[in-house]
Amino acid sequence: MAKAARKKASKKELILRRAAAMFREKGFAATSMRDLAETVGIEAASLYNHIRSKNEILEAICFDVANIFFTNLETIESSSKNSIGKIEDLLRFHIRQMVENYEEVYVSDREWKHLEEPYLSNFQSQRRNYRKKFAAIINEGIDKNEIRKIDAPTAVLIILHAISGIESWHRSKAKISAEELEENMLKIMIDGLRKP
Amino acid sequence: MAKAARKKASKKELILRRAAAMFREKGFAATSMRDLAETVGIEAASLYNHIRSKNEILEAICFDVANIFFTNLETIESSSKNSIGKIEDLLRFHIRQMVENYEEVYVSDREWKHLEEPYLSNFQSQRRNYRKKFAAIINEGIDKNEIRKIDAPTAVLIILHAISGIESWHRSKAKISAEELEENMLKIMIDGLRKP
Repeated sequence: MAKAARKKASKKELILRRAAAMFREKGFAATSMRDLAETVGIEAASLYNHIRSKNEILEAICFDVANIFFTNLETIESSSKNSIGKIEDLLRFHIRQMVENYEEVYVSDREWKHLEEPYLSNFQSQRRNYRKKFAAIINEGIDKNEIRKIDAPTAVLIILHAISGIESWHRSKAKISAEELEENMLKIMIDGLRKP
Repeated sequence: MAKAARKKASKKELILRRAAAMFREKGFAATSMRDLAETVGIEAASLYNHIRSKNEILEAICFDVANIFFTNLETIESSSKNSIGKIEDLLRFHIRQMVENYEEVYVSDREWKHLEEPYLSNFQSQRRNYRKKFAAIINEGIDKNEIRKIDAPTAVLIILHAISGIESWHRSKAKISAEELEENMLKIMIDGLRKP
């Protein structure tokens, strides 16, 4: 890439990163292009050299995150571990993403409703698909007697939302380490699933 | 109450109910007083006969919900059940509120950030206080060997967020009954806590 193109790409990355932080803090609806330009440190007019609209930014954030999670899910599905092992890997991945890639993951989880068509339908269908595949791993574990008889979609709902609660961990002042958080979450959730 | 006063009170209740539904669907920031007037079916100008501002509505919703939960927590704290029993009662209460009083609970949980001072600080301090009292019940259970050694604030975080996930249950088309939802959530979460 030529130097100018590289510079433009990294500026776009900066815009996406700052936008994610701002959407997370103020919400997508309450953030203006002016706010964004200010936090990036450029004129509002030059922001449009890099992105066409606030919605384009939201699309980039949501679909980047969706791709990361989907790729990981496919890797886990094709692994040779048993169901509990697969779910453990999946949980650890989700927890680490919420810890290390917080702003982007939070925004894609909470602000996707503001996507416009056709992105909105596409994103919703990816979400449904992801949850179905996750539930299928749990159902496989129930069939193989590794996991107790529970309603798999409810288990998925509990797990995904519990993990999105890492938001509170980020905000809390006296917090345990990320490693302790991960181990505690695993202990409670995996043992809630495992067949006694 | 005189007839006119009663009518005014019930109109205010209607406004709060419709506002909760709208704040839940569109978000507080994206809802205008004009939107609200329309959904209530009155002129924007007469809306101001009942409430002074959009923020006053949010305050009413958030503090009503906070009071309901706090009163319940105090009842549970003073009950004679063991810690697992107390936590079970607490979970069932939270789940039922998310099922039956959904719009209001959702808004108070997700949109409170838009409260203005001094309400914002007051609400945040009530939230912190609630979570501390909840964690204290878990720690009591750990001390009495009913609950496994875990980080109590993390357990509270998991539980509260898992329950707020009932949002997905409301949105899903093919859903299990509210009773099944409650039993499944209890199974997974209580057994994740209980000392094996």
